[in-house]
Amino acid sequence: MSDAFFQPVSGMELPRFAGMPSFMRLPFMDLEHDRISEVDIGLIGVPWDSGTTNRPGPRHGPRQLRDASTMIRAQNGATGVRPFDLMNCADLGDVGPNPADIQDSMARITHFYDTVLSKQIMPLTAGGDHLTSLPILRSLAKDAPVGMVHFDSHTDLYHSYFGGTMYTHGTPFRRAVEEGLLDPKRVVQIGIRGSTYDDEDTDFAKAVGIRVIRIEEFFQRGLQDVMAEARDIVGNAPTYVSYDIDFVDPTFAPGTGTPEVGGPNSFQALEVVRALDGLNIIGADLVEVSPPFDSAGGTAFLGVSIMFELLCIMARR
Amino acid sequence: MSDAFFQPVSGMELPRFAGMPSFMRLPFMDLEHDRISEVDIGLIGVPWDSGTTNRPGPRHGPRQLRDASTMIRAQNGATGVRPFDLMNCADLGDVGPNPADIQDSMARITHFYDTVLSKQIMPLTAGGDHLTSLPILRSLAKDAPVGMVHFDSHTDLYHSYFGGTMYTHGTPFRRAVEEGLLDPKRVVQIGIRGSTYDDEDTDFAKAVGIRVIRIEEFFQRGLQDVMAEARDIVGNAPTYVSYDIDFVDPTFAPGTGTPEVGGPNSFQALEVVRALDGLNIIGADLVEVSPPFDSAGGTAFLGVSIMFELLCIMARR
Amino acid sequence: MSDAFFQPVSGMELPRFAGMPSFMRLPFMDLEHDRISEVDIGLIGVPWDSGTTNRPGPRHGPRQLRDASTMIRAQNGATGVRPFDLMNCADLGDVGPNPADIQDSMARITHFYDTVLSKQIMPLTAGGDHLTSLPILRSLAKDAPVGMVHFDSHTDLYHSYFGGTMYTHGTPFRRAVEEGLLDPKRVVQIGIRGSTYDDEDTDFAKAVGIRVIRIEEFFQRGLQDVMAEARDIVGNAPTYVSYDIDFVDPTFAPGTGTPEVGGPNSFQALEVVRALDGLNIIGADLVEVSPPFDSAGGTAFLGVSIMFELLCIMARR
Amino acid sequence: MSDAFFQPVSGMELPRFAGMPSFMRLPFMDLEHDRISEVDIGLIGVPWDSGTTNRPGPRHGPRQLRDASTMIRAQNGATGVRPFDLMNCADLGDVGPNPADIQDSMARITHFYDTVLSKQIMPLTAGGDHLTSLPILRSLAKDAPVGMVHFDSHTDLYHSYFGGTMYTHGTPFRRAVEEGLLDPKRVVQIGIRGSTYDDEDTDFAKAVGIRVIRIEEFFQRGLQDVMAEARDIVGNAPTYVSYDIDFVDPTFAPGTGTPEVGGPNSFQALEVVRALDGLNIIGADLVEVSPPFDSAGGTAFLGVSIMFELLCIMARR
Amino acid sequence: MSDAFFQPVSGMELPRFAGMPSFMRLPFMDLEHDRISEVDIGLIGVPWDSGTTNRPGPRHGPRQLRDASTMIRAQNGATGVRPFDLMNCADLGDVGPNPADIQDSMARITHFYDTVLSKQIMPLTAGGDHLTSLPILRSLAKDAPVGMVHFDSHTDLYHSYFGGTMYTHGTPFRRAVEEGLLDPKRVVQIGIRGSTYDDEDTDFAKAVGIRVIRIEEFFQRGLQDVMAEARDIVGNAPTYVSYDIDFVDPTFAPGTGTPEVGGPNSFQALEVVRALDGLNIIGADLVEVSPPFDSAGGTAFLGVSIMFELLCIMARR
Amino acid sequence: MSDAFFQPVSGMELPRFAGMPSFMRLPFMDLEHDRISEVDIGLIGVPWDSGTTNRPGPRHGPRQLRDASTMIRAQNGATGVRPFDLMNCADLGDVGPNPADIQDSMARITHFYDTVLSKQIMPLTAGGDHLTSLPILRSLAKDAPVGMVHFDSHTDLYHSYFGGTMYTHGTPFRRAVEEGLLDPKRVVQIGIRGSTYDDEDTDFAKAVGIRVIRIEEFFQRGLQDVMAEARDIVGNAPTYVSYDIDFVDPTFAPGTGTPEVGGPNSFQALEVVRALDGLNIIGADLVEVSPPFDSAGGTAFLGVSIMFELLCIMARR
Repeated sequence: MSDAFFQPVSGMELPRFAGMPSFMRLPFMDLEHDRISEVDIGLIGVPWDSGTTNRPGPRHGPRQLRDASTMIRAQNGATGVRPFDLMNCADLGDVGPNPADIQDSMARITHFYDTVLSKQIMPLTAGGDHLTSLPILRSLAKDAPVGMVHFDSHTDLYHSYFGGTMYTHGTPFRRAVEEGLLDPKRVVQIGIRGSTYDDEDTDFAKAVGIRVIRIEEFFQRGLQDVMAEARDIVGNAPTYVSYDIDFVDPTFAPGTGTPEVGGPNSFQALEVVRALDGLNIIGADLVEVSPPFDSAGGTAFLGVSIMFELLCIMARR
Repeated sequence: MSDAFFQPVSGMELPRFAGMPSFMRLPFMDLEHDRISEVDIGLIGVPWDSGTTNRPGPRHGPRQLRDASTMIRAQNGATGVRPFDLMNCADLGDVGPNPADIQDSMARITHFYDTVLSKQIMPLTAGGDHLTSLPILRSLAKDAPVGMVHFDSHTDLYHSYFGGTMYTHGTPFRRAVEEGLLDPKRVVQIGIRGSTYDDEDTDFAKAVGIRVIRIEEFFQRGLQDVMAEARDIVGNAPTYVSYDIDFVDPTFAPGTGTPEVGGPNSFQALEVVRALDGLNIIGADLVEVSPPFDSAGGTAFLGVSIMFELLCIMARR
Repeated sequence: MSDAFFQPVSGMELPRFAGMPSFMRLPFMDLEHDRISEVDIGLIGVPWDSGTTNRPGPRHGPRQLRDASTMIRAQNGATGVRPFDLMNCADLGDVGPNPADIQDSMARITHFYDTVLSKQIMPLTAGGDHLTSLPILRSLAKDAPVGMVHFDSHTDLYHSYFGGTMYTHGTPFRRAVEEGLLDPKRVVQIGIRGSTYDDEDTDFAKAVGIRVIRIEEFFQRGLQDVMAEARDIVGNAPTYVSYDIDFVDPTFAPGTGTPEVGGPNSFQALEVVRALDGLNIIGADLVEVSPPFDSAGGTAFLGVSIMFELLCIMARR
Repeated sequence: MSDAFFQPVSGMELPRFAGMPSFMRLPFMDLEHDRISEVDIGLIGVPWDSGTTNRPGPRHGPRQLRDASTMIRAQNGATGVRPFDLMNCADLGDVGPNPADIQDSMARITHFYDTVLSKQIMPLTAGGDHLTSLPILRSLAKDAPVGMVHFDSHTDLYHSYFGGTMYTHGTPFRRAVEEGLLDPKRVVQIGIRGSTYDDEDTDFAKAVGIRVIRIEEFFQRGLQDVMAEARDIVGNAPTYVSYDIDFVDPTFAPGTGTPEVGGPNSFQALEVVRALDGLNIIGADLVEVSPPFDSAGGTAFLGVSIMFELLCIMARR
Repeated sequence: MSDAFFQPVSGMELPRFAGMPSFMRLPFMDLEHDRISEVDIGLIGVPWDSGTTNRPGPRHGPRQLRDASTMIRAQNGATGVRPFDLMNCADLGDVGPNPADIQDSMARITHFYDTVLSKQIMPLTAGGDHLTSLPILRSLAKDAPVGMVHFDSHTDLYHSYFGGTMYTHGTPFRRAVEEGLLDPKRVVQIGIRGSTYDDEDTDFAKAVGIRVIRIEEFFQRGLQDVMAEARDIVGNAPTYVSYDIDFVDPTFAPGTGTPEVGGPNSFQALEVVRALDGLNIIGADLVEVSPPFDSAGGTAFLGVSIMFELLCIMARR
Repeated sequence: MSDAFFQPVSGMELPRFAGMPSFMRLPFMDLEHDRISEVDIGLIGVPWDSGTTNRPGPRHGPRQLRDASTMIRAQNGATGVRPFDLMNCADLGDVGPNPADIQDSMARITHFYDTVLSKQIMPLTAGGDHLTSLPILRSLAKDAPVGMVHFDSHTDLYHSYFGGTMYTHGTPFRRAVEEGLLDPKRVVQIGIRGSTYDDEDTDFAKAVGIRVIRIEEFFQRGLQDVMAEARDIVGNAPTYVSYDIDFVDPTFAPGTGTPEVGGPNSFQALEVVRALDGLNIIGADLVEVSPPFDSAGGTAFLGVSIMFELLCIMARR
């Protein structure tokens, strides 16, 4: 049983609209907190979108996600899991980026996660654009490459943009493979769709062994069948889960910068995470939630619902 | 054939954006109207949300639903039913609540419905939050408990909130069972999902015999199979239909106070009502439409489309 | 291989938010342009909504669609088609309507398309309300009646409105049949739903041989089966595709004037077009996108995604 | 003292969000009502925008204005006037236009007002675009030309649009002068501003003797001085007041189709009407409120606040 | 000089969109914090709107105000005051209300403020609807009645609503006078306007000696003259400042439940507070900010700008 | 008289919602156009916001400004100026930035303006964030420092952000002074307000001789008096006008990233430009319009109205 200190505030006691909006109403603790050593899972915000090539906004994601997360209760209705009873969870705050310097920001992020990992805390991140995953992987995979289940409508495997720019939200996993952070044979990308420039990204995927499952295949084979293959691909070794909210159809998640129509619905958005239960998850992120394009907040609420599913499988690890 | 007086105004004659927005462009009649005795089905608004524990707004529901309802035409395209030819329908106006006194408001509502029933009018209600159903049932079931088909993402079977508050939109059906208004063996709840505090509500359901069909079961078994079971549960005895708009996925119905992602789409939202055709329906409600969270009005239009389906099965009774 | 002049500007070179928003970032050419004779497919806007009987707005459609179209890239991810390599495509601008005179506007539209066709350019049109299709068909079918695959939630086969008004967005295809522009035996309407006034429209369809596939049939039989029948109906003869955005469920496409709930999702919205590949398409339109009811722009982005699918099958002709 | 039947429903008794939204919560009466002969002032909606040359929407104005009008109480706080005690006021409903036929619609409007006037009811109209004023004036001024105080950012004195179209919302008062409905020497236009095509409209004004007061003059001389001149111009003879909501700065009234920045604020918007107290007002209108461009409803609330001021000076007549 | 612990986080170091949104980026401290005794001014949220008679929403005010407050920097540009250097300021969190029980909520609020005052902390409150001020005054004025400068468009001096309901946001100051919490001779209300039911409230004001300055007088005499009188009225004795955001024109502050057009602009909204500098302020509140009616957040930003002005005069006390 | 080729398309001929949205419906010409040498004034977009420290978005400004600019007509109603008759004006398109590289983007911008100036074209720029002005000044003032009239709520004179970042939208004019592009004695900043970090910026202004006119002084002295001083400061030598939309009150211009309440209204926003008539203007910009925070488009319409005033004084030069 988790320590009472780590239990979220109940909406039965304090209405959901009251109180400071920490992630899921968990205790807010910075890395110097005197009980930090007791934390098992840390929820972390990375308010940063300098890698965005089109419509910026994910820098505002963590705040909106925290706000929406006050709607989350203690128990997973679908699976019965009570994550806050299984592990001590806490909101570790935001990594402070430098909006005007990509390299400086990446260094700050990697440093923050190094500290988190040094305390044996498993990170669940709220981005930020998808470039956020790269500096996190530099910390998580510094000893050995990891596997990854990647939900997205884009492969994010391009080489560069705008005549040679190497670090954008369209390139993180190309970099991660090149830097030896990901084992491409243990990487699966699910939900890919939309118009493309050319085949550069998928050619790279084929060349290094990344499995790309397009949305047409996803719908045709069915969710359970596809997810079984995904589980096989990553196996029992350490695995990261990276979830771009644009995996979901933009009608369900309009608040994002590079939407592609024709994606999964919100039920499928949750089910794909539940299907990962039992894997050796070492960390996860939910990225690309962009509040300026979602003033009604529906995307953020779906985003935190996905984060709660990720938390539930991480807590059962 | 229905009296011409009771036919809705056609959009072919008066454009839909013109004229006073009564429900479905039906005649507006208060309970003193000299033709009130000819009414078979009364559409009633209950603009009241004092039972809301989180985000208020359903007090504004009836007005927005009436506005959206001017888009409804005379014939059900899917089933061919022409409800206004089968029964005399009218807009009976709103029950005037006391926003600052829950007990007073409930007494006013029950009194209004007592009058409606005394005139042999079958009520179709536009809420209001879900606590609205309780004072209605106090009128409808005052002689004997009734059965209920309940569409919702929440059971609304909690005991109390905020340290003992017994009357909220999370408790109406617990109260209704306790008060002998509902026969729990003839109650089925469909679409339940989302995170929960604990198992208090479902434990109560089990204890008294209410059948709870979660959304995972709904999607796995399929709509027709689940609805067949629902028909068996309520049988041929008098049955109430209570439809919380948050049964539907919040992307389709964002205008509500306690959304839960991962629900049915709009086609399924209509089909579940059509599947109730032939039951012994004695009244129905559509609740929790909250305009402040849906300025575009899509939720209200879906809401009145559901009300039209409810009307069609009531008119064929 | 297409001429480099006709290649769209790449987002890898000029960010998508920069530059003049022509359709899909194609060259903008008026009908006097010195390379007009090289154009194979012309994208044309018809900013006109004088046929609207309820909520106006589609006059603003072409501009919003052009803006959203800057998100479209060069290759169809699902089919691999690269339309701009197959045919020379260009943005031919807007037909200037007379907002205050329906007959004058229809004459202007037909005249514009006569010129386009005289240059052997295949037109892909962005409306405009659905009356737009009538003056286009007057040009396209002036020699012989054509077949049509028609996606919509309404048949648009009514005789007249408001006591005898013959030209509205609810009547274009009745007029087209009467004028001998459509061969009703080669017309199929898919997605019909919603409440109706009566059976006047479907009785006409039956009388002349138009096949109407309601949404219930579409969902029950499945998309592939229905589309196979549609292909059989139109056969190999010249066929027009008319796509009303209200075919799609209004949650996915809220920006339209006469929505009907319970429609296809965005994936199905694209798949129905892909299923037409190989037909003898002579032109297509996407109509009824109404920006005032879709300030977030999701409808327009879905609309241009559909236009891109239409373009891909037209380019493979 | 006014009859109790004609008193608006008080928000102290029935909350403002409840009940049918008639204008200012007055009794709704059609022209056949058995107490119609007792009505002194009739509030009338004209949901029509066929004269709009750019962004349509005012056809939805009357409904939104009625909704917002439920916020209006019984007494004018600034002047102490209680209009409903001075005169019997009622909501006479909407004139049903033909959205597809301008001449037919104008004939319907004039006919409706002829009937209203035949019952000695003074009309206060909610438009509709500004062309609405023309068919009203055809009724009001059929015996003799009237004077007019005209608040607007445009003169609406153009000859024609789009190559000869004579009836648009940019031409009504040119037509009214030509038809002998307005006495141009007794017409004053206040608030004119924005970029213009040329001097055609103001040249016409000068030629016939209409006084045009631009916004720069309005701000420089001050409201009271300008309004004193306006009172002098119209004198004691019968005078119509036509108030285009775009007179007000578009930040205060965004819901309109042809905004011009740099206008009066909301306090001045009310004060200009109060300054007309004591004139011989025979009717008034408030036009060009366009809900699709004002989903938040602020324009409508300002609009009905202006209508209430107009009503107060009409009731003291 | 203030302790560094109490300095707000600078946007030069951590971007404004990052970090937990406490009021003005001050340290968040609950009443048990070990440095609570060092706090001079406490910023407190009261997320409660049970007193609302029309459109609810202010329960969501404190969270949105905190979010917007991250835009506030350390120095008042207009006056040069640096409040965080003058006094130790902290965010003391929210008072947890019971949304379903008005009396219980008022007791909770008074209890919270009793504790705050017992620690010699001066409270600056973010509401909540205007009933919030009553339980605060019960704490602040429990020893002796206080004076009050009250900015509002309504007097909030009504006796009761809905047939006898005594505690609503329209009655707090009537109750406060009756309970001896306010010295009516030292109360001034500024900005009153809008339509009214009758003269009940202003008759009460006259009877007990409250000075009511309507908006017409405010604009005619000018801000400085009116504020000089206000200073004279309250004098040097302990004075509370209660600021209803609906004092400001609703175009500048749309996010509120009972707007009245024709109010001050945002510059005047700040200047009236600056004019109170030097008074004996013992506490202040900013109430009626209602996020559901202001999704863009402009009202909240204006609200926190007003709170910052209030803080600056409190810090100079 | 201007060449007919350079006349904007009239809304009397082609409705404003039709056609490609070039700036003010002028001809669109790239720098290679065969009539480029005839252009006197070039309207240029710089869709770039990499200098933004808080809320990004101005990269989307030029497109929204072009769209709104189709509402501008040919003649200035207030001054009678017809700019398109005085000078040949054209839309020169956008400068393509590199969103991921600030230095590269600045170099591209300066290069573009070097080319423009080499053709004797006077530039009127639509930003972009305020850092945009720096690379423009590097081109305009490469031979000698220029004077500047600067409308803004911020001085943009800070040294650096985030621990040493020198190029942000808060630093351009510090850099410009340091680089010898601006003659500080001929620089005046008008409208400064809001909370500040400290006095670093104004201390710098004093040290180098920049005149800072705060908003309190602006309102107290009055617009004409302040602008007369501004004219004196810049004199008859070459002067640049830089207009940050956040000079205007955020209620009038919500679509911007760093709003400060309490600013000028829209009439004053135009008048300050008119007051510059006759100066030796060599170029101007309108920056910081951020569409994601202004979905209704009011800010963009005000922005282009300001651009039109700038154009009118430039055309009379």
